[in-house]
Amino acid sequence: MTIDYPSTGLQLRSLVTTEGILEISLQDVPVVEPQPTQVVVRVEASPINPSDLGLLFAGADMASASVSGTAESALLTAPIDANVLRGLSARLGASLPVGNEGAGVVIAAGASEAAQALLGKTVAVTGGSTYSQYRTLDVALVMALPDGTSPRAGASAFVNPLTALGMVATMRHEGHTAIVHTAAASNLGQMLVKLCGEEQVPLVNIVRRPEQVETLRQLGAQYVCDSSSPSFMSDLIDAVSATSASIGFDATGGGNLTSQILTAMEAAAAKNATEYSRYGSTSHKQVYIYGGLDRGPTVLTRNFGFAWGVGGWLLTAFLQSVGPDEVSALRQRVALGLETTFASTYTKEVSLAEALQPEAFSVYGRQASGEKYLITPHMT
Amino acid sequence: MTIDYPSTGLQLRSLVTTEGILEISLQDVPVVEPQPTQVVVRVEASPINPSDLGLLFAGADMASASVSGTAESALLTAPIDANVLRGLSARLGASLPVGNEGAGVVIAAGASEAAQALLGKTVAVTGGSTYSQYRTLDVALVMALPDGTSPRAGASAFVNPLTALGMVATMRHEGHTAIVHTAAASNLGQMLVKLCGEEQVPLVNIVRRPEQVETLRQLGAQYVCDSSSPSFMSDLIDAVSATSASIGFDATGGGNLTSQILTAMEAAAAKNATEYSRYGSTSHKQVYIYGGLDRGPTVLTRNFGFAWGVGGWLLTAFLQSVGPDEVSALRQRVALGLETTFASTYTKEVSLAEALQPEAFSVYGRQASGEKYLITPHMT
Repeated sequence: MTIDYPSTGLQLRSLVTTEGILEISLQDVPVVEPQPTQVVVRVEASPINPSDLGLLFAGADMASASVSGTAESALLTAPIDANVLRGLSARLGASLPVGNEGAGVVIAAGASEAAQALLGKTVAVTGGSTYSQYRTLDVALVMALPDGTSPRAGASAFVNPLTALGMVATMRHEGHTAIVHTAAASNLGQMLVKLCGEEQVPLVNIVRRPEQVETLRQLGAQYVCDSSSPSFMSDLIDAVSATSASIGFDATGGGNLTSQILTAMEAAAAKNATEYSRYGSTSHKQVYIYGGLDRGPTVLTRNFGFAWGVGGWLLTAFLQSVGPDEVSALRQRVALGLETTFASTYTKEVSLAEALQPEAFSVYGRQASGEKYLITPHMT
Repeated sequence: MTIDYPSTGLQLRSLVTTEGILEISLQDVPVVEPQPTQVVVRVEASPINPSDLGLLFAGADMASASVSGTAESALLTAPIDANVLRGLSARLGASLPVGNEGAGVVIAAGASEAAQALLGKTVAVTGGSTYSQYRTLDVALVMALPDGTSPRAGASAFVNPLTALGMVATMRHEGHTAIVHTAAASNLGQMLVKLCGEEQVPLVNIVRRPEQVETLRQLGAQYVCDSSSPSFMSDLIDAVSATSASIGFDATGGGNLTSQILTAMEAAAAKNATEYSRYGSTSHKQVYIYGGLDRGPTVLTRNFGFAWGVGGWLLTAFLQSVGPDEVSALRQRVALGLETTFASTYTKEVSLAEALQPEAFSVYGRQASGEKYLITPHMT
């Protein structure tokens, strides 16, 4: 059985020219015939995650972006600063598909049993190029959704849920017992509140606006610190002391938030110290930077001794480190919790063409918590 | 056998008052009777290491220091900034002895066999309070020096040699094959050049002045980059590419040197990349900050992907991590190389009283490479 499908479909592409211009456009591309272990998915929904924006916007100055052409054949262009352009040499002139994940229906399958078993099923997919109407990909990149789950509900089944699970797993693997999380009102942050509640892992949530405190409290969050409050540092020290959190995950990256978290951890450790140590406490304090909401430099005021680490954290590297069996178990857990623990909410749904319009990218490009967009490639 | 020794001896003390004044003075303190596993060492030589200065100066403004009293009963005072004082609450009002290491002769010993075996021997000691004429301490903190080694030659047998060995061990343990080192013209840096030469570990040396390049080349250093040169970044990228160094040890701490090392490692990794990765290279890049020559903030310009780490590195934590047998083997290796691989040189020898005078502390307090002082507590 193969459902009829067209020979071509729309796909969003991002290109950086050698002159330093970002060009985002829709291309009509062939739907690739499936190999034996592949399936063809009609993509119904794909989220715009912060982790998609680097590839999509290439660090261009989106405030200076302009859109030409008709709605169906729009061309978005934006200038790229020379400093940013220097880091993009490997992608110059290449028209790149975008989109880390999505969900849809399998409309054709290769000859293998694994592929055939997915035919007609609603599935979540990962592996890139999901801002497309059709996506041909290996069954390893496909997860069948429980019966009755819609593509919209399954669109964000990989990036955020596996990141939340990865944070808890990293915490355990490195011997910590509680977590500090920033940008905690995000979809990911809300998942982490629910997940840590289930796992009984104490969680210190850092949000950027007072109204976000209430959002998280309603989900059951016990510790919420608002970085815009004048009492932020003492609130943070109190929460870190109460939870003994010694690992943090920072989506911000730039500025001094990572440093403040380490300072709070050191202050909490010093409260329990019995004697003065000129080198600071001996308990290891770790913050991982997993995003770049603030693209400025990370500024570390080293008043937290020598037992500390800061580093990058990347979902793909985490998944590789735990191996395929564990990844498979984590995926299974996500599939069962897609409408509860791992549920996502979206501000707005846009077609592929609408995603290129200023009223859309000026909002989702801001990466503000609670302004998440969903692309629905077959809506017009 | 016990050699006659006086009942008291001079000891240097550092005190921070609640009013925020640093007071450094000499006290006449009792020589402690040895317990069965202890020995009494007449300290003949003790280096002023950068790692001693935190405890000694307590971050005071030494440019505003003044000295009163006679040379033999001098009192050095200096103001401490309120921000710095806040981090010193655990030591307020406590008169603390200083000095991480030194060497001398065992003049009395407790009843145990291990202690008695050291009587009359020239030994190196660690464990603090070495800016003293006499030091009573456990045999575990004492290392007998090879026959004929003078206390001056053995004065720096712990901190720098074990740090150099610790860097190479950390490199191997974490799976790297070459090292980047900053402040490389220091006594420690010169040891590391010799050690890495023996161990065939490629080493990229970063120095701060052109004349230091020649100093290191004469020791056999192959890669020396001068951070004051306009071509520093391209020199560093070339050296990191040639050596495939992916771990660095930074004595500076503040400023952007740690960030520049990570940037160079990423640029070297990108040269070998076959395709564009939006998240940077997948090879892990690590820099450890083991000193604070620049006490300003560490500024990380995150243009090096997500596979990176920055952290504190402390000798005592390293020694604990490898365990007593390995520490014992490392010490043995140091003892045999004290006049070759692990030889130290000093700009000047000063008595305890002279160490408190402006013409001394204004020089050793600068922590400039090649201006290392040795305290000789029995010289007057």
